[in-house]
Amino acid sequence: MINLVILGAGNVATHLAKAFSNAENVKLKQVYNHRPESLLSFKNFVPTTTDINQLEKADVYLIALKDDVISDVADQLKDNDALVLHTSGSVPLEALNRFKNHGVFYPVQTFSKKKEVNFREIPICLEANTAKNLEVLKELAAKISNKIYEIDSEQRKALHLAAVFVNNFTNHLYNLGAEICRKNEIPFDILKPLIRETVDKLESLTPQEAQTGPALRNDKQTISSHLEMLEPERQQLYKILTQSIQEFNGKKL
Amino acid sequence: MINLVILGAGNVATHLAKAFSNAENVKLKQVYNHRPESLLSFKNFVPTTTDINQLEKADVYLIALKDDVISDVADQLKDNDALVLHTSGSVPLEALNRFKNHGVFYPVQTFSKKKEVNFREIPICLEANTAKNLEVLKELAAKISNKIYEIDSEQRKALHLAAVFVNNFTNHLYNLGAEICRKNEIPFDILKPLIRETVDKLESLTPQEAQTGPALRNDKQTISSHLEMLEPERQQLYKILTQSIQEFNGKKL
Repeated sequence: MINLVILGAGNVATHLAKAFSNAENVKLKQVYNHRPESLLSFKNFVPTTTDINQLEKADVYLIALKDDVISDVADQLKDNDALVLHTSGSVPLEALNRFKNHGVFYPVQTFSKKKEVNFREIPICLEANTAKNLEVLKELAAKISNKIYEIDSEQRKALHLAAVFVNNFTNHLYNLGAEICRKNEIPFDILKPLIRETVDKLESLTPQEAQTGPALRNDKQTISSHLEMLEPERQQLYKILTQSIQEFNGKKL
Repeated sequence: MINLVILGAGNVATHLAKAFSNAENVKLKQVYNHRPESLLSFKNFVPTTTDINQLEKADVYLIALKDDVISDVADQLKDNDALVLHTSGSVPLEALNRFKNHGVFYPVQTFSKKKEVNFREIPICLEANTAKNLEVLKELAAKISNKIYEIDSEQRKALHLAAVFVNNFTNHLYNLGAEICRKNEIPFDILKPLIRETVDKLESLTPQEAQTGPALRNDKQTISSHLEMLEPERQQLYKILTQSIQEFNGKKL
């Protein structure tokens, strides 16, 4: 049995708390947050506190807070033998090195409070300061996920960067597609099966094999007719992405 | 019963021929292509020809060929009363106006020969030169899809542009994410659940509501640490996309 306390009440903390409260051989003892209103949704399934000096004794303290407050909150934890973890994609392991036992527990997913997720499918990237702590981390992660990876701090930083490309930037392109639809009175729903198929293809093809379109074909006529339809700032983005596709795939403009 | 001949043997023609050969009250009479080897995969379910002067008589001729050969092939069709259609996102309706009855039958999807698709879920955008022809088009489209839209040539051009953003450009971002993974010995599979969730969110949120990440938060520290990790040409793309997110969402750099 692993005794666990979670620090944080945001999207990551919420989904982790729910997953761990339903897991076997883990006792989620408490959730901490300094704002009482943020704890309301936790009260029906786990004890909570707003006082960091009133934390329950536990084997693992999991800090699921924004990057810029991880150190501050860690500094307020009593120094003890427990394993102290953070969940950030971009904060290095060393940020917690005042603790004898420390590690990183990074779930690679975008969480919304409203939307349920199946944690068993979410990759969790682990790093720890000792082999023994890594074993504890693996045991903990296996209680909620089937997809566990050992990833060091440098790799994790790269992974977080890659996640920005495939999640944040991609979602922005959905925004720009939706904007074009709006301006032309086209329902955005027309594009959703295409968006879904673009992702489904990744199950059987690499993204390089799946690439299609006017940039790859170097279809100058379509490219220039597209540029004519765009406002200057969107034109620039279209050009840079087109160039990037051609350069990536070894085509010449 | 609608008698149909398809001209073309590429990805779009292949999937349309399969869908129509299984549809009720449509008789797929023939598939034409000038290259005999392209017709091999059709021979087991539909008569084929490589001679455009040997086309069967039909109610509808569906030209599912590349944009730049649509006019050439159309010019070789005998002028008759049949309805002549093309399947292109970017070719205007008028490209077929030497035919008394003409229209556009544009399925909004990315097709791979190897990958099966469920045509009933694929949006088909229709346009015709008369109200009567539009009715025939609707009847034809309804035989294979549940998602039928009337879209004029200007809208279709805009839709094709939006499709480039959400499909071609998005897939390129998957490529760049995969490249970062490869360089850092991280399995790209770690990112797939995140990619899928980015799309799943569109079922319950608009892309604007779903936007997250360092650009939106204007998290300068993360942005500059990401830029440091990238090579110059990727840096430029990262910067432009970050600026575009901030400008789109009314944030200041």
